[in-house]
Amino acid sequence: MSDGHRRPLVALTLLLCTRMAVLAAPDPKVREALIQQELDMQTGGEVMLNDVEKVLDARLSKMKQEEHQRAEFLPSLHFFKARERIRASPIYSLLQKMPKGGALHVHDFSMIDPGWLVKNVTYRPHCYMCFTDNKSIRFIFSSQAPKAHTKCSPWTLMEELRDKTANVTDLDSSILGNLTIFTDKDVEQVFPNQDVVWDRFERAFDALWGLVTYAPVFKEYYYRGLTEFYLDNVMYLELRALLPEIYELDGSTHDRSWTLKTYQDITRRFTAEHPDFFGTRVIFTIHRGVNTSMMENAVEEALKLQRDFPIFMAGFDLVGREDSGQPLWYFRDALSMPAERGVALPYFFHAGETDLQGTTVDQNLLDAILMNTSRIGHGFALLRHPVAKDLSRKQGVAIEVCPISNQVMKLVSDLRNHPAAVLMSENHPLVISSDDPGMFGSSGLSDDFYEAFVGLGGLRSNLASLKELAVNSIRYSSLNQRQQEMALTVWQKKWEKFVLENAF
Amino acid sequence: MSDGHRRPLVALTLLLCTRMAVLAAPDPKVREALIQQELDMQTGGEVMLNDVEKVLDARLSKMKQEEHQRAEFLPSLHFFKARERIRASPIYSLLQKMPKGGALHVHDFSMIDPGWLVKNVTYRPHCYMCFTDNKSIRFIFSSQAPKAHTKCSPWTLMEELRDKTANVTDLDSSILGNLTIFTDKDVEQVFPNQDVVWDRFERAFDALWGLVTYAPVFKEYYYRGLTEFYLDNVMYLELRALLPEIYELDGSTHDRSWTLKTYQDITRRFTAEHPDFFGTRVIFTIHRGVNTSMMENAVEEALKLQRDFPIFMAGFDLVGREDSGQPLWYFRDALSMPAERGVALPYFFHAGETDLQGTTVDQNLLDAILMNTSRIGHGFALLRHPVAKDLSRKQGVAIEVCPISNQVMKLVSDLRNHPAAVLMSENHPLVISSDDPGMFGSSGLSDDFYEAFVGLGGLRSNLASLKELAVNSIRYSSLNQRQQEMALTVWQKKWEKFVLENAF
Repeated sequence: MSDGHRRPLVALTLLLCTRMAVLAAPDPKVREALIQQELDMQTGGEVMLNDVEKVLDARLSKMKQEEHQRAEFLPSLHFFKARERIRASPIYSLLQKMPKGGALHVHDFSMIDPGWLVKNVTYRPHCYMCFTDNKSIRFIFSSQAPKAHTKCSPWTLMEELRDKTANVTDLDSSILGNLTIFTDKDVEQVFPNQDVVWDRFERAFDALWGLVTYAPVFKEYYYRGLTEFYLDNVMYLELRALLPEIYELDGSTHDRSWTLKTYQDITRRFTAEHPDFFGTRVIFTIHRGVNTSMMENAVEEALKLQRDFPIFMAGFDLVGREDSGQPLWYFRDALSMPAERGVALPYFFHAGETDLQGTTVDQNLLDAILMNTSRIGHGFALLRHPVAKDLSRKQGVAIEVCPISNQVMKLVSDLRNHPAAVLMSENHPLVISSDDPGMFGSSGLSDDFYEAFVGLGGLRSNLASLKELAVNSIRYSSLNQRQQEMALTVWQKKWEKFVLENAF
Repeated sequence: MSDGHRRPLVALTLLLCTRMAVLAAPDPKVREALIQQELDMQTGGEVMLNDVEKVLDARLSKMKQEEHQRAEFLPSLHFFKARERIRASPIYSLLQKMPKGGALHVHDFSMIDPGWLVKNVTYRPHCYMCFTDNKSIRFIFSSQAPKAHTKCSPWTLMEELRDKTANVTDLDSSILGNLTIFTDKDVEQVFPNQDVVWDRFERAFDALWGLVTYAPVFKEYYYRGLTEFYLDNVMYLELRALLPEIYELDGSTHDRSWTLKTYQDITRRFTAEHPDFFGTRVIFTIHRGVNTSMMENAVEEALKLQRDFPIFMAGFDLVGREDSGQPLWYFRDALSMPAERGVALPYFFHAGETDLQGTTVDQNLLDAILMNTSRIGHGFALLRHPVAKDLSRKQGVAIEVCPISNQVMKLVSDLRNHPAAVLMSENHPLVISSDDPGMFGSSGLSDDFYEAFVGLGGLRSNLASLKELAVNSIRYSSLNQRQQEMALTVWQKKWEKFVLENAF
């Protein structure tokens, strides 16, 4: 909150504290001032809307009132149950059309609906599948019969499997069920707790691994990912990427540099074809399940990649369930290496994606800030860490809020209780993102913007809030100042067009 | 947070903000200082423990660690499912024995387990029951056949009904099911949403009304309520009381003054018999469903009662579901009457017991503070109202936190997401209370203390937190300064005994 907010609050507080006030009826003017003060403090509270924007804002406000008239308030339902109703809502259509700026927290292999992998990729030649002992599946593309996979049935060529299968539709939907955690079934039954949902989540990545790390699919997947975000009116991406070895049909593999360079090449092609798309930067990520020497190697590799791809590479992060892994502090030596050498390696740490309080992992928020993280992934526990919260605000370390992800991974059920509702009421530095839309059955950013705008923002948040959220996604990106100004200029044009086309 | 907290934070922040820091490895000393700062900021963070207390604290810390080792973390489960496991936990036994100070948010007709009403009261002579059209029940005691109740079956004498009933146990448990919302059944099925649970909650009060407003039962009920809280090591009560007409067997009725005086007499008797019980003060409450002129009458009556019972009567409040009623501001003329006459009528408003954001009812928090409320009942929405939160802190307007109530009434499911977890991390002025233990199947304050200590406080909260919560319940009571000191002296003795008896 700016000093401009603080001062009148203190003045009003003093007024309320005087003895006089105790025996006076409430003054409607003081009341109005306090109400206005809260409105000014929220995300977008200081954004001035022009006349056309005000017209659209009035439309939007009416739409939001209507969302509150529903028999069931959608952000209080599990996204899997609410999705079709959300997508049918007028507010979703509008959010879909809205230029939302950048998506700053999205993972590489969960950008798009895995239905595409099933319907398209698994129908390609040379695609083999096996069934694991723990009821999951694995894939591989190979020009010859692939080597047996431990703990998996013998490999079967998909064409042959489908030939032998009576009901191919059932087979395909069973495959799909292994590649996503989205389900039509009773979600409380299927995912009774965090352990179960995290287990299913990680299995799904294991299952799709052999598909998305096959070089031709890898390239197409990313291009489709860009397309999906672009069509959702997202103009920029910061992609958290594992940069794994990518393999070819003959079994040969490519190293991380190749993978990163391939992302860069495809991004260049995509932006050439879509000049109003601003681009992608990559945050190299490693699973937090590694040991300290593996972490040192990863940091070394990150530094090397940063030297080789100074513009395309944005920084470094750790992925995987925080509660099951080592805390950030465990890796402090490895993570301090760049600073000790006087080199800046920007960090974008996941931190506070937990509801355990007081565990060693629960220190990640403070430690992320101490290690100079540029932003915080999730920060779900931030409110319970007043010092970390204060530092995040003062240093402009934005929180990457992913409401659907937090709900699906069972940190919170009713999104009105999501901590970002509080952060939005205080205009804390934050951006809205979608984390793993492919896994969650969401798409681009619009589903998460719906939850944020309707569920977190409540009736008070408005077009100005949305505008600030979009601008935040550029202001808190890893782009340098000059690039940000360029991106904002592009965004501003899109915004004006959007407002004009939808106000009347 | 006191100024003492603020200053080092700013200093550390400056340190972290300097450019130097960006390229330095994290300093473990700064880290320790920041961690300590968060510990100091929490409820109890400034309380110094003596050596014996430290021993007990270590025991408590171990117990809490064990609570976190359970397969299911109890505060994240619905209380109805978790109750028996909570009660069997060593931490519960300790909390039960702990002198908890006062219970500042408890309603008159939900102090105790309604099982007593079924097993005892409905077996008394002259007890009639009827079945309402909407599947509930009504009771009346009467020396002669009572007048027919509209929308209810003919009255049946309980003795006769039981004589005619094959399975009296089933009948009794069916009656009990009407007097409480506690259930062993699948709670998500029985109470799918807030509307259903509020409906059942209000029906249960309607059902037990004829029992508890019968003069002899009324007196016994309150005496038993005091006993139950006393045995739970609660030494003081602020009772929100509707003060309804109380009836006798011949149909004659008593007015509010009689009801209040009866409470006072019984309290005197109880404290005479239990000299270490400090007493009760009554907050006269009226249902928010009334119209403005009824509210004016209620305020007039409150002023009269305050004149007649200056020591026993604590103040005034509105009850009933906030979301279904008029906002406080609707009643501003009536509620301003005392101030306009230069008379102080202390208010203890329920406010912010909602998860709707931006509705007129959602203004209640700010309005309660504007109308000089002494405390805030629930304040569940406080975090989303930064100005109200700031005023509440600065003016010492304590929040009456009732975790089980908020969970049962479906404002939040996992109590780790309860906003008071944040308030406790900032040592916001607050007290823990139980609201309607009889309705929720809880007892005294211990169940709510368990949820607060284990669920809201997380691993960081400790014996100092519990001590501060107990002291808060006296400091934020309506007792005057001198009475508070007296109560604290009594409490301190109990506390020392408790610590000594449980440390080793």
